[in-house]
Amino acid sequence: MLTGDEVGQHNSRDSCWVIIRGNAYDVTNFLDKHPGGPRSILRWAGKDATEEYEPIHPAGTIEKHLPIECHLGLVNPSTVSAPAQNTSASSTQDPAKPPPLSLCLNLHDIEHAASKTVSKRAWAYFHSAADSLASERTNAADWAKISFRPRILRNVARVSTRRRILGQAASLPVMIAPAALARLAHPDGELCLARGAARYNVPYCASAYSSVAHGELAACVAADGQGRGGKLFFQMYVPRARDEAAAMIAGARDNGCAALVVTVDTPVVGRREEDERHSLEAELESGVYVPPAYAQRDMADAAPDPEGSEPRGPHSAALDWEELKWIRKQWGTQSGPLALKGIQTAEDAKLAMEAGVDAIYLSNHGGRQADHAPSAARTMLEIRKFCPEVLERMEVVLDGGVRRGADVLKAVALGASGVALGRPFMYALGAYGTEGVFRAIEILRDEIENQMRLIGVTSLDQLNLESINTTILEQELPRSLSAFPRVSSKL
Amino acid sequence: MLTGDEVGQHNSRDSCWVIIRGNAYDVTNFLDKHPGGPRSILRWAGKDATEEYEPIHPAGTIEKHLPIECHLGLVNPSTVSAPAQNTSASSTQDPAKPPPLSLCLNLHDIEHAASKTVSKRAWAYFHSAADSLASERTNAADWAKISFRPRILRNVARVSTRRRILGQAASLPVMIAPAALARLAHPDGELCLARGAARYNVPYCASAYSSVAHGELAACVAADGQGRGGKLFFQMYVPRARDEAAAMIAGARDNGCAALVVTVDTPVVGRREEDERHSLEAELESGVYVPPAYAQRDMADAAPDPEGSEPRGPHSAALDWEELKWIRKQWGTQSGPLALKGIQTAEDAKLAMEAGVDAIYLSNHGGRQADHAPSAARTMLEIRKFCPEVLERMEVVLDGGVRRGADVLKAVALGASGVALGRPFMYALGAYGTEGVFRAIEILRDEIENQMRLIGVTSLDQLNLESINTTILEQELPRSLSAFPRVSSKL
Amino acid sequence: MLTGDEVGQHNSRDSCWVIIRGNAYDVTNFLDKHPGGPRSILRWAGKDATEEYEPIHPAGTIEKHLPIECHLGLVNPSTVSAPAQNTSASSTQDPAKPPPLSLCLNLHDIEHAASKTVSKRAWAYFHSAADSLASERTNAADWAKISFRPRILRNVARVSTRRRILGQAASLPVMIAPAALARLAHPDGELCLARGAARYNVPYCASAYSSVAHGELAACVAADGQGRGGKLFFQMYVPRARDEAAAMIAGARDNGCAALVVTVDTPVVGRREEDERHSLEAELESGVYVPPAYAQRDMADAAPDPEGSEPRGPHSAALDWEELKWIRKQWGTQSGPLALKGIQTAEDAKLAMEAGVDAIYLSNHGGRQADHAPSAARTMLEIRKFCPEVLERMEVVLDGGVRRGADVLKAVALGASGVALGRPFMYALGAYGTEGVFRAIEILRDEIENQMRLIGVTSLDQLNLESINTTILEQELPRSLSAFPRVSSKL
Amino acid sequence: MLTGDEVGQHNSRDSCWVIIRGNAYDVTNFLDKHPGGPRSILRWAGKDATEEYEPIHPAGTIEKHLPIECHLGLVNPSTVSAPAQNTSASSTQDPAKPPPLSLCLNLHDIEHAASKTVSKRAWAYFHSAADSLASERTNAADWAKISFRPRILRNVARVSTRRRILGQAASLPVMIAPAALARLAHPDGELCLARGAARYNVPYCASAYSSVAHGELAACVAADGQGRGGKLFFQMYVPRARDEAAAMIAGARDNGCAALVVTVDTPVVGRREEDERHSLEAELESGVYVPPAYAQRDMADAAPDPEGSEPRGPHSAALDWEELKWIRKQWGTQSGPLALKGIQTAEDAKLAMEAGVDAIYLSNHGGRQADHAPSAARTMLEIRKFCPEVLERMEVVLDGGVRRGADVLKAVALGASGVALGRPFMYALGAYGTEGVFRAIEILRDEIENQMRLIGVTSLDQLNLESINTTILEQELPRSLSAFPRVSSKL
Repeated sequence: MLTGDEVGQHNSRDSCWVIIRGNAYDVTNFLDKHPGGPRSILRWAGKDATEEYEPIHPAGTIEKHLPIECHLGLVNPSTVSAPAQNTSASSTQDPAKPPPLSLCLNLHDIEHAASKTVSKRAWAYFHSAADSLASERTNAADWAKISFRPRILRNVARVSTRRRILGQAASLPVMIAPAALARLAHPDGELCLARGAARYNVPYCASAYSSVAHGELAACVAADGQGRGGKLFFQMYVPRARDEAAAMIAGARDNGCAALVVTVDTPVVGRREEDERHSLEAELESGVYVPPAYAQRDMADAAPDPEGSEPRGPHSAALDWEELKWIRKQWGTQSGPLALKGIQTAEDAKLAMEAGVDAIYLSNHGGRQADHAPSAARTMLEIRKFCPEVLERMEVVLDGGVRRGADVLKAVALGASGVALGRPFMYALGAYGTEGVFRAIEILRDEIENQMRLIGVTSLDQLNLESINTTILEQELPRSLSAFPRVSSKL
Repeated sequence: MLTGDEVGQHNSRDSCWVIIRGNAYDVTNFLDKHPGGPRSILRWAGKDATEEYEPIHPAGTIEKHLPIECHLGLVNPSTVSAPAQNTSASSTQDPAKPPPLSLCLNLHDIEHAASKTVSKRAWAYFHSAADSLASERTNAADWAKISFRPRILRNVARVSTRRRILGQAASLPVMIAPAALARLAHPDGELCLARGAARYNVPYCASAYSSVAHGELAACVAADGQGRGGKLFFQMYVPRARDEAAAMIAGARDNGCAALVVTVDTPVVGRREEDERHSLEAELESGVYVPPAYAQRDMADAAPDPEGSEPRGPHSAALDWEELKWIRKQWGTQSGPLALKGIQTAEDAKLAMEAGVDAIYLSNHGGRQADHAPSAARTMLEIRKFCPEVLERMEVVLDGGVRRGADVLKAVALGASGVALGRPFMYALGAYGTEGVFRAIEILRDEIENQMRLIGVTSLDQLNLESINTTILEQELPRSLSAFPRVSSKL
Repeated sequence: MLTGDEVGQHNSRDSCWVIIRGNAYDVTNFLDKHPGGPRSILRWAGKDATEEYEPIHPAGTIEKHLPIECHLGLVNPSTVSAPAQNTSASSTQDPAKPPPLSLCLNLHDIEHAASKTVSKRAWAYFHSAADSLASERTNAADWAKISFRPRILRNVARVSTRRRILGQAASLPVMIAPAALARLAHPDGELCLARGAARYNVPYCASAYSSVAHGELAACVAADGQGRGGKLFFQMYVPRARDEAAAMIAGARDNGCAALVVTVDTPVVGRREEDERHSLEAELESGVYVPPAYAQRDMADAAPDPEGSEPRGPHSAALDWEELKWIRKQWGTQSGPLALKGIQTAEDAKLAMEAGVDAIYLSNHGGRQADHAPSAARTMLEIRKFCPEVLERMEVVLDGGVRRGADVLKAVALGASGVALGRPFMYALGAYGTEGVFRAIEILRDEIENQMRLIGVTSLDQLNLESINTTILEQELPRSLSAFPRVSSKL
Repeated sequence: MLTGDEVGQHNSRDSCWVIIRGNAYDVTNFLDKHPGGPRSILRWAGKDATEEYEPIHPAGTIEKHLPIECHLGLVNPSTVSAPAQNTSASSTQDPAKPPPLSLCLNLHDIEHAASKTVSKRAWAYFHSAADSLASERTNAADWAKISFRPRILRNVARVSTRRRILGQAASLPVMIAPAALARLAHPDGELCLARGAARYNVPYCASAYSSVAHGELAACVAADGQGRGGKLFFQMYVPRARDEAAAMIAGARDNGCAALVVTVDTPVVGRREEDERHSLEAELESGVYVPPAYAQRDMADAAPDPEGSEPRGPHSAALDWEELKWIRKQWGTQSGPLALKGIQTAEDAKLAMEAGVDAIYLSNHGGRQADHAPSAARTMLEIRKFCPEVLERMEVVLDGGVRRGADVLKAVALGASGVALGRPFMYALGAYGTEGVFRAIEILRDEIENQMRLIGVTSLDQLNLESINTTILEQELPRSLSAFPRVSSKL
């Protein structure tokens, strides 16, 4: 007769015994066949699982499913201890700490954890959006207006999530979006992102305003010390002075950045009231008063300049298609694609194509720039309605409101090669550092793989407009645009 | 002169006397004529009902409506006691117990009772749905987007709710949907469902993961000991190994299951976060850590396999139309219809027809599988728009979000032969055991009969697309699908 | 020099003096010219109004607008007392009493007052609606989907709200809808309604289940003792037995009822859960258990009768178009119009026309019968889309969800001759008795007159489909109906 | 070696030094280049900013961006004091006072401040709207249904917000709308508005019911004592008597009002229940009872006059297109444009054009007149659909629900020359007096300039229907109108 101690030594995935109604069973090989998954057994590995087993299995289940050689025989009951009770101490959650990372099942959980742990200043900076918040809200709302059309009875045993994004191979159709000042949220700052990009081979588009030097990020992304690596892209705000711009572009090339992403939606910075409010309150508390950021001229000079005012600030508000040619030339054609970030209309998508740009990045800047701007999903549909040829000649990436693998797959079905996420990764590193970034990528990977199987596709290029239902969003598109005399018949 | 005691002996439906303004009346034969229904009188059977009667009846009412021979004469007032007051004790509700079953007037009441009484684990298992919950929510929302077009002045004295479902006669167009692990919620588990199916002659499609053996369920359904009985169907998740599949199918046939329902929407199990969260919290409290269910490969192996990953788990993720032919053959053509459960597009409905399947079961698995999947109502309209001929050649059943007799009738008007409910029956047995299941069926029966009369139909085959208004939902359908060059003009 | 006492005697509309900055003014003739209305002055009649006057009038206002002969001269300041302060006592509201009726500015205020004051039983009876409440909610929601198209620069000095309803002259396009058992809410019961109908000359359609005898109501409606009067209509639920039906109709004619309104949407009574729940709880508390009202057959007889079941209850569930001919004959053609109450589709509107009915009454019974039934506004639009000729040959009245004069005018613009309200009048009499009914009619009259002027119409026959915007509701109509091969081009 | 005191003297925009990691830097010329704006540096002017600087700048940032001559060298650490801590006292907000004006970042903040500070009476007057509030709510809701189509890569260095409104040059496409009785909210009343209009050169349309004399307002608007000034317009309610009307018009001309705005939507005053309720409660508390304002005839006279009733009140309810000719003549053609305020349909816009009016002012009176009236945005789209030629021949201004610069720009894109705001300015003066009005204009100016840059326009005449997406609102327009046999193909 076996003893509880003997059974107790088989408490792992490699050798897993359990006791049920006084008998020991070797379920090691059965773990992966268990309909409830291996975890529900592993919790009881080496222990008496009767209490768990009884209510959910029909009589005879174990006899039916487990080969006779795995029936190990009786266990001396006096040697078996009762299952451990919860110790109330372990369930006491410290309110100042984020919950265990393993309890973050989706990106919303991670955001919630960050809201409790990062500084008020960091939260105000990352969480804020422009003016009425309409642009930010439409991002999430528009993804929710798209549904899937799941196909069945397709062999989905093997699923590949691989994708090329801005010319680089990636393990997922996911990119880390440019977001500034990560060290506000965590001492390691953008290094956390670089480590995630390296480990999981997802591209990382570093912000011009990274709080870690780009060279350091490039090195970190290139290799994670375990033979894995990814690619760094460089996001650029075009400065007023050409020499500064030239230096930036040269620096990006020197750091081996594989794509240049020129932001075109930020001639001036948007009015992000939550962030502004936080700063003003801090100033008031500190006793220093400075006129608000957006009162960019002397308040005494009430009447505007008849010639029109000119904004202060670091970015060139004069950037135009003509100037873009100069940037194009600076970057050259050997260093990787040049993408425009912030395209929000079919007209500009077409102009970008005509300007010979390699890729467009549809975005309303996470709702942080223009008020009541369209979501990337809407812009994508607008392009498909009015100038679908754009998608044949340029790669398209996008961001805004993406929080689920399902959102990523909707974007791919619309025609995007890759989908960028910004805030979720900042929240992840703010609450959990590098581990949080790892976890965020894993969540997305799992959601994507699972959803691919459930809608019946095994590789991303099988996704198309018939994989999804976009009727609701289509009804909100412009009906005609003067730049496009004929509308595509497909949408 | 009568006494209060004499009157008090006539306190039943068989002989019902009441006292009003000092006179006794025999209202036995009037009970069913009473506009307020017999109950409002029966509460006062054998008693002085003056207080109740006075404020709501015009003077002379009793004289006008009750034949003179039922006027029994004066009652000696000194022999009549005052109406009993409420004893405050009886109204104290024990918060740990569900409310009296008679107070459950609809399936939502039953769900609410279950939420207070079943274990956290059972609640998490039954209540959870996939990812963002969008699929689950669209189920209820889409039924609410359909309204009725009630017809009047039709003789609805006799109404029949009879229907054939998957080839079997049923007393209602209602089926108990496959749902696993009922013993989580109640010690009798699926036996409660089988008893309900037998008593009311509604089909019961037993889950592959029943916690009571299928043979036992089949015996219970076949006869309830009082001469009534129903039919058991068998729901099958196709396992990886053909021998296991063959044994399952043979077992279903041996148990006399009258239909084989093959689930085709579950190559992998959906991500049900509420359930997952419950398990993780339980594990954390118990001190055992197991990596999350969906991290189905070694976390250290961060980069996906270039060939694509393969899921663990018991189901065959490789099941396809080809393999279905083998299953079809195993089941044969003499054992009853073979149905595919989980059809979500017009394209797959048509493929099922072409594959010679007998029936399709439209479902998004109660919102527990793919995220942002369509409701069965939407899929049904999609079929009617793009391939209405499907409905002429295959029976259609469906489930998802059905909580009212009105929902059932909408589905029938759309073309379904039967409508399955899953969670409501699990909540019913969890809170009230077998009696709860009886009650749930009775509620549905009453809602269906009542609504049939109120919309002017006396048998279910009178229901059609003009019985309902589906305009809102129609506007959300895909506008065109490449598999269907021509769209039906009817929708 | 005047004294405060002298001024104080001029404190009414007939002679109104006020003190401003130490001077007295006679503003009697100015009262009606005051932009803020006479009330804002009358509050200060005979008093020192300086505090009120100062902040809102430009300097010189009084001199400019008041003829010099109304400047009465200085008042001895020592004879003027300060304005009375609020006594805190007077502002203490007794929670058990409704607020002063004058504070009820709209019908919602009256409903709120009733919710606080009538018995639980009465509230449950009047407030309840069928099943999911969808039918009730769509009533209010659909009115809100219609907007006005207000026209300007039309002479609206004189506005007439007169209208003929079911053949009778009425001072408003408003009718008191049939609602049963008013004595549940107030001892005078339906007499309150009859008094309101008489005083304001609005038709009152008495319920078959009035708790006051119809003869008494007819007498009360006919004359209010001050030379005013109205008309009673009779609402009939057709009983099973022809002799009872014949007696009812004869009674209505004998009582001088000017129209017969046959309810056709109630072959059985709807499932009103709030009311049901109240009864069940009362029964449970009293210790008497009676099976639920809707379990209309023996629960032990679980399986339905193969021939279909037949409902108990007082109404004829067999009533059909054929039987209607008999009723038509009983009522005759000299006693006033015969109307069908409960029409909910274009098809039945057309059948009613073909059956020679004089009027149709569009209604979903206040949402108390079929679940997910259409609102009267929707049915009206459906008729205008599919069979507009119906409106040329039959009068149309309607009810459901009407709570504002604006709702009444929308219905008239859609083509209704009159609009009935039920619950609001029951709440009015429940909370305030006869005065409440008076007030409810006055509120409606004022809302209607005011809105008529603001949209630029002076008589109700000027209202038509272009007075309102119904585009949102139109988009929810059925697209085609087989009974109507051609759709009207107007809608 | 420098000392903390020396550094501390450079603490302004003119000379700004900061200490970082023990070194002093002169950042005066860098202030405007700083990506985070000058404020984030100025807070630390003359101080040790290490704590702020460290977490958000990559190593080497200061060396890279600041010329070597601005590196001032080491500072003696013993002479540098730690950054001041917040004094908890300063953060304690007095609940009775509004928050510091600098914390008002948008007009909603100002409204919120007013809700806490102005008298109940003033709040009730300004905040109230008609009947069901539907008209008021649709104003804000309809702006939100319009989104922008932001264009990129346009030189937006210089942006001009200049516009002509009712013939006058203005610095913004913004006008102060007529609103009465400002002294209810602040002792200076409308003078606050006049000062804002003068300082920022925005037109101010003074209400007929201003609580400051129009002559005083005109003088104040004309010049602000610092060489700036604006224009006053005059809003007129047409009185019953022609002599009064003539005097009003002459007065406006004498005061130099540059436009006459005749309100045409107020033959009677709307039913504003919040205001009414406040008055009634005040009366009840004071013990004086006066019948409600809208009971404009004797309540005892219950039945309406067969000839129709006539409203009391100061305005002419008989004003029509004929009478308008007389007003037109009184005003003449030399005094500036005549505009009609309150146009709500395409039909009336066309009639106004045919009547030779110079401008139309689309408005539903802030939702204070007709119930369920259309928003100005909807009316504008209706005009563009049915009679776009109106916009070529008359100027259009509008108001209602405008709370953001984005709303203003949407209106301009629809075709408005100017956009008026009423309540926001009343709240501004109520909470903060003249400074509040200044602030409100500055907020709008900043929002407008910022949004113009972000959508890629540099002057307002570049805005057109393709700058915005109006598809959702278009779907709610009337489909046809009998006055317009042909619909414009553009919308």
